[in-house]
Order: sequence, then C-alpha cells, then structure tokens
Amino acid sequence: MSAKSANDPRPLLGGIEAGGTKFVCAIGTGPEDIRAEERFETATPEVTLQRAADFFRRHPRLPEAIGIGAFGPADLDPDSPTYGHITSTPKTGWDYVDIAGYLQRYLDVPVGFDTDVNAAVLGEHTWGAGQGLGNLLYLTIGTGIGGGALLNGVLVRGLLHPEMGHLIVPRAPGDEFGGVCPYHGACLEGLATGPAIAARWGRSAQSLPRDHAAWGFEAHYLGIAVTNLILAFSPERIILGGGVMQQRHLFAAIRNNVQTNLNGYLGHPYLTRSINSYIVPPGLGSRAGVLGAMVLAQNALDQRSTRPEP
Amino acid sequence: MSAKSANDPRPLLGGIEAGGTKFVCAIGTGPEDIRAEERFETATPEVTLQRAADFFRRHPRLPEAIGIGAFGPADLDPDSPTYGHITSTPKTGWDYVDIAGYLQRYLDVPVGFDTDVNAAVLGEHTWGAGQGLGNLLYLTIGTGIGGGALLNGVLVRGLLHPEMGHLIVPRAPGDEFGGVCPYHGACLEGLATGPAIAARWGRSAQSLPRDHAAWGFEAHYLGIAVTNLILAFSPERIILGGGVMQQRHLFAAIRNNVQTNLNGYLGHPYLTRSINSYIVPPGLGSRAGVLGAMVLAQNALDQRSTRPEP
Repeated sequence: MSAKSANDPRPLLGGIEAGGTKFVCAIGTGPEDIRAEERFETATPEVTLQRAADFFRRHPRLPEAIGIGAFGPADLDPDSPTYGHITSTPKTGWDYVDIAGYLQRYLDVPVGFDTDVNAAVLGEHTWGAGQGLGNLLYLTIGTGIGGGALLNGVLVRGLLHPEMGHLIVPRAPGDEFGGVCPYHGACLEGLATGPAIAARWGRSAQSLPRDHAAWGFEAHYLGIAVTNLILAFSPERIILGGGVMQQRHLFAAIRNNVQTNLNGYLGHPYLTRSINSYIVPPGLGSRAGVLGAMVLAQNALDQRSTRPEP
Repeated sequence: MSAKSANDPRPLLGGIEAGGTKFVCAIGTGPEDIRAEERFETATPEVTLQRAADFFRRHPRLPEAIGIGAFGPADLDPDSPTYGHITSTPKTGWDYVDIAGYLQRYLDVPVGFDTDVNAAVLGEHTWGAGQGLGNLLYLTIGTGIGGGALLNGVLVRGLLHPEMGHLIVPRAPGDEFGGVCPYHGACLEGLATGPAIAARWGRSAQSLPRDHAAWGFEAHYLGIAVTNLILAFSPERIILGGGVMQQRHLFAAIRNNVQTNLNGYLGHPYLTRSINSYIVPPGLGSRAGVLGAMVLAQNALDQRSTRPEP
C-alpha cells in the first residue's frame, strides 16, 4: 500500500511534459491542486532527465506514479524492446533515449508513457475543454506542430502514432516560401510553426502586427489542416494550443476558413452556429500537457492495481 | 431462442451494402458460406428498400439479424431521433429516409447500422486483408470516395462520421480541371472519382489506356490522401477498394508517391520495404461492404443477447 494523506483519498501524481524545447514537471492531484511545478529548457538527456528526477525526489512525498508525455517520434508499443524511448529524432543526443526506463529506475514507481500531444488531449478530456467528449482532437502549433486524438474515449496510437504536423497542404495563393521542414520543406510544419513564420518574414512571429499578411497565410494553412482533420476524424471538438495560438485573433480566422472550406457540406450545428465552441483554445492553457501526463500516471497506477500480483 | 440449423452453430446473418448507386444484399454466415446474394441499382427508396426486404423474406429461413452499411451522410447516433436514417443527401428522394427502421419493421429482427465504408473496414478486419489489425483504414474510390476507420478495434464514428472523400488536396502540377464536387469543386472527390476522371478527359475511366496522363493525376491525388491519412491515423494497414482501384497499376504508383511524399520521415519498415503489404486491395474484393454488413448484424445480435430482458 502506498502512503496517502489522511484527508485526501486521491493519489499524488507526477507529470512530465517532455517537450523538444522545454520540460514541464508537476506534482499534485489535479489542476486545482498542483503542489509543485518546474519548467526548464530541454538540454542533453543526462542533464534534463536528472533534473526531472530530482524535481520529484526533492518533493516531501514521492508521487505514487508518474506519467510522461514525450516529444516524438516515440515508441508507444508496450511489447517493443524500445518501449518508452524517443526513437529516430533529429534532436541531437536524444535518439533512442529511454526516457520511461530512466525515470522508472530512478524513482521506482509505475510510469505511464505517451506522446506530449496525446497527453494534452487526455488532460483536456479529463479536466479541460473536452470533458465528457469521447472524440476529441488536440493540435499544438508552436516550435513544431503535433496532434493527439482521442476516439471512443481511447488515445489513438496505431502503427507508430499520429504525425499531424507533417500533413501536406495546398499552398496559399501568393506564398512562395519554401518551408523549413528538413524532411518535406513545405508541409504544414514547414509552413506554419513559429520558426517557419520567423524564417519567412525575417522577424519573430510575436513581433508581427495583427494586420500582417503572415496571419492570413497562417489561417489558410491551419484552416485547411483543421478542415481535413474534421473530415478524417469527425471529432466532437478541436482544441488548438501552443505558442502560435496565443495570437487569439487566429481562432476567428481559422473558424471562418473552415466554414468556407466545408461550404455547408457538413450541416451539423457545431460547424455552423456553434463553431465558436467547436474550435477552441485549451481549457488548461499551457498546462494541458503536464496535467495530461498526470492522467497517464493515474492510468499506470490503475493498471498496476488491476494486474494480479506476481 | 432463435431457430438454428442442427449442424451449424453459427447464426444466419443478412447484410445490405446500401450504396448510392447500387445495393448488394447477401445472406449467410461468412465469406465461405454465402447462401444467396443479389445486386441491383439504387432506385427510389420505396422500390429499393422493398426489393431488399423481399430478398430476405424470399429466403427459406429469415436471418437472425441484419446489418446495413449505408451511403452517407447517415445518422449513427443511437440516441438521435433520426438514428438509422440517411440524412442530408443530395440524392433525390433519399434525404431523411429511415433505412434501418424500414427494414426492422418489415423483417422484425435486430438491425445493425453504420456507413458503407465502416462496414467495409469491419468486413476486412473480420475476414479480409485486415485480420488481427486493430488500426485499419479502408478507402473506396469509385462513383464517390469514402473512408472508414477502425481504431483500437472500434469503428470511428465521432460527431457525424468520417467524410474522407472531401479532403482538400494540393493540385497536381498542370491540372487545371475544376473538379466535379457540387460542394467543393476540386476536393479529393471532385478530382479523383470515376465520374471526375470521365468529366476531365471526356471518356470513361475504364477506356483510358494505362499510359494516359489521367493515371499520373490519379496517383498524385490518391498518394496525397493516403499520405495524409497515414499521418493522421497511423493505421497498421490501408485498404484501397472501389471501381477505380480495379486499375491495379495504380497501387504501385500510389505506394511510390506515398514514399516520395514522406521522404523517409516515418522509418517504419511497413512504409519502406514492406509497403506492398501495407497499401493493399481488399481481401474480400467487391464483397467487403456486404460482408461487413453481416458483421454489423452479428454485433446487433450480440448486443441484444447481452441486454437484459425487458
């Protein structure tokens, strides 16, 4: 039996949003009860994972389980010898790093593992903008673009895991920019991330005024991606997060473009009069990923407790 | 209790692939045991549904349940007052026709209901090219284009149901054709169905020689659609069926285009050396839909038997 506070029956959970540019660690029982939190830049695996492990070890009480939402590509297949590893990432030093194994050995508690965007969609489903919805999509647009999907209440993993950032999208009229994706040049990620915007215009996305042509292109690309994801998944809600979506004016422009793209084809009220509550920002803000990782921790704990003793 | 043959414990099932251009009805216990089958053109709802019902009534033994895989858009929500109906179809006379209700009242057996493409993916999962795979995609390219998806072993329905035919795809270089989709002009369905090919070249798709430019365009559009669906769903296999895919040479061209599009990004062997068994024709041929409808019938029967008596 694990030690619990006499007053609180909920287990203490640890979450790690292990992103390619930053790590977010938190400990608590849910969004209203975060007992400690730390954010730091992603450095070498040794330094970064040690810092994450120390965060939990430093806390007066070790969490009963931790969850990790990792940048990809990551191995999610529990039967694979590299389960819990980052796999063939171009990020220097991180290829085939055993994130889940490292933390499991260091902390000796059950560890849940999934992608950062699957964690985010799970967090939003549990506590955020997707509560009660079994079919939910989360797209983050920041340094990279990634998507997580919940269908029939279960996370989509599949052969590897979704890689929605690399969707092929038609060019916006007048956009001659070659794109920044090292694999595909002008795929969605090559055209619509923060770094892509900066490379195209020679200045940071945040510094571009609201009436700059950049935002028309951005709404074009994200509008097409969201339209295609609606046609593919038929989700009950789409959540758009990440640094680029801090430009709140993009929401109205993307919703308009989705309606223009669909041209009345899907007559559901969610896509017509209720579209403002269909394409939405994350309810958990920038904590969607780390809180979702805490749900992964809870799931790891539940799995352990339903498994027969060896 | 329902009557069963003394020699065969498997229930007798009825399937209807209710397509927009043709209906296929069958009765049996599986692909190796089809006892009767009938195909006829889709006419008015009265004539067509009566003919389907008569097919089953004529058989010496009524099936214990029937399943219907219907053209869309269709209402799949069991809690909706229009569950089992075709909804806002442009097909004359068919909007808001209660297909499932009609057959249930006429035959008085449990009725399963889903889209034709969801039925097809279920059929392929049970008896065809997707056996043992929980994450499977089926795309049919014929008079229209539609897609069905199985994820974690469960059919994707969502808010409405997937509408993969209307995905937005970048134009092939040199293709100026405006497309035939009444909603979107040059969406996937507007550019790549049999009727779209015929409208673009002024002759039927079947009559075009293998070296005709039409097939390069076709492989371009289907290659992009398949690439984007792989990135979105991460399926374990993709099955391409329908009349247009009778042009078997398209398979090699689509596989090549998918690999060119991905450019090595997803390093999984299924997408490299094993791609010939990753993007495949249906194992059940043109019976995927009607056999899948029989699986829907089986599911309806299972649901009834696990439900408590009223």
